[in-house]
Amino acid sequence: MIFDTLIERITMTQAPICVGLDTSFSYLPESLKKGAEDEKDRAKAIVKFNRAIVDAVCDIVPAVKVQIAYYEALGTAGMKAFKKTCEYAKEKGLIVIADAKRNDIGATAAQYAQAFLSEEALFPCDLLTVNGYLGTDGVAPFLEEAKKSDKGVFVLVKTSNPSSGELQNLKLEDGRTVYECMGDMVKMWGEGTEGKYGYSRAGAVVGATYPAEAAALRSRLPHTFFLIPGYGAQGGNAEMLKTCFHAGGMGGIVNNSRGILCAHQKRGGDPAEAARAATLDMKKDILSVLGEICAK
Amino acid sequence: MIFDTLIERITMTQAPICVGLDTSFSYLPESLKKGAEDEKDRAKAIVKFNRAIVDAVCDIVPAVKVQIAYYEALGTAGMKAFKKTCEYAKEKGLIVIADAKRNDIGATAAQYAQAFLSEEALFPCDLLTVNGYLGTDGVAPFLEEAKKSDKGVFVLVKTSNPSSGELQNLKLEDGRTVYECMGDMVKMWGEGTEGKYGYSRAGAVVGATYPAEAAALRSRLPHTFFLIPGYGAQGGNAEMLKTCFHAGGMGGIVNNSRGILCAHQKRGGDPAEAARAATLDMKKDILSVLGEICAK
Repeated sequence: MIFDTLIERITMTQAPICVGLDTSFSYLPESLKKGAEDEKDRAKAIVKFNRAIVDAVCDIVPAVKVQIAYYEALGTAGMKAFKKTCEYAKEKGLIVIADAKRNDIGATAAQYAQAFLSEEALFPCDLLTVNGYLGTDGVAPFLEEAKKSDKGVFVLVKTSNPSSGELQNLKLEDGRTVYECMGDMVKMWGEGTEGKYGYSRAGAVVGATYPAEAAALRSRLPHTFFLIPGYGAQGGNAEMLKTCFHAGGMGGIVNNSRGILCAHQKRGGDPAEAARAATLDMKKDILSVLGEICAK
Repeated sequence: MIFDTLIERITMTQAPICVGLDTSFSYLPESLKKGAEDEKDRAKAIVKFNRAIVDAVCDIVPAVKVQIAYYEALGTAGMKAFKKTCEYAKEKGLIVIADAKRNDIGATAAQYAQAFLSEEALFPCDLLTVNGYLGTDGVAPFLEEAKKSDKGVFVLVKTSNPSSGELQNLKLEDGRTVYECMGDMVKMWGEGTEGKYGYSRAGAVVGATYPAEAAALRSRLPHTFFLIPGYGAQGGNAEMLKTCFHAGGMGGIVNNSRGILCAHQKRGGDPAEAARAATLDMKKDILSVLGEICAK
């Protein structure tokens, strides 16, 4: 079961970290940018950069998160780069989270599931972010496909951005907030799919930037694994994201994109070495708060 | 201004209709399916089919809606087919709505906007569907790009699917429903961008299947143009979607995908001719309820 595998790799690496390959061409070192004339050249340079990052971190983290928007901006050449990046990370033993926030209903959602989560997926990943605003019809087709192929989803619950509260923190008549209601739906969607460590196939996106909300969700959703954005550039730190985890340090994986991809801009030197050093620093930072991580 | 153009084409054609190119390979006639061995062949056949449909309807409707999920399922070959379909419809004078329901925050949302809405967009469309669950950060980057390129967005407000009410119809503490709150945000996001007919660049997706909710939104959002899914296969009919429109029949455009693309399966004969006949029948059906459509 995919979340069991993720959990085992987290305990093995002692790094509840995924490296975000939100690779903007602008993040690349001059040596890779040089001579790129069109989107095809840029897409190729991005793949080259991503491969170097993957090589540098594949033995110290369990997963990467590939943000598809950066690839879509480069058209079909970018989509090829997305596919190549996912495939390379997979080859190197990493779990691949596609951050695509897809959403639609019925037969249409099933097409997205086909694209990302099926056995024959042409944009293959292990875990896909989805948006649950459309309700059960919008998420069930993803989970159905995920069950067949042993994959899973992360549903947006409480996002890390400054304006996430505009809708997500509103109070409902029944006393819950909108994000709590979304959390409850995620819990329901995942019921009966739990693996051996107790987490279901329906994970949740819960931002590191809102510790109180994360705490509320952590106790409300004991069987839901969290994908935690917002660490680093967005302002989240280790102390803040503690509430996303259960005692024992399990229950979530923290993403960092720019802090790792752009480490070479701050630290100088080789981008891959800088990325590895930044990842190890992040691990140290997070473990200083979580302590040793246990599967249960 | 893009909504002015859309409105002028609607009054000219007297057809508040967009033809949904949610083209599943399974919808194609046997003659086009024959010999397709892989996703590249399937993607090519879909483009051929789409071109025939566009040729058949481009003088009687103002717009097409291209549902990207069906193209993503075919990988990079599918994404090429999406691009070709959008470009061909544009060449034939149609307004192109990309139904991609994209959503993300800040710099990442800006990448999606680059992909679909910028002047140099590699997946070019005129109007893009987006999901507003993330709040202002998730929609503003799309609108910023749309202003530069004279394009626009449709934000999901009240969707047409059976389970849309699970979240969208919940009552907030302040008495509004979640969909009304989303509608109010769309109103706010669009303020100051109105064209000469009074509609802003931030449109809303409002399903034909929920007439009471549509009525509430129509009076609440006088300056918001509606993209109306749910007619036909999903159960919406002309009488039900009346509440989506202002007096004078303006304020919305109704999508029909399967009812037009698959018309040949019911009616027999040439798919393009069947699609045209189905579109004309739909026009008659809608006008029987709306009467003559005026821009104001």
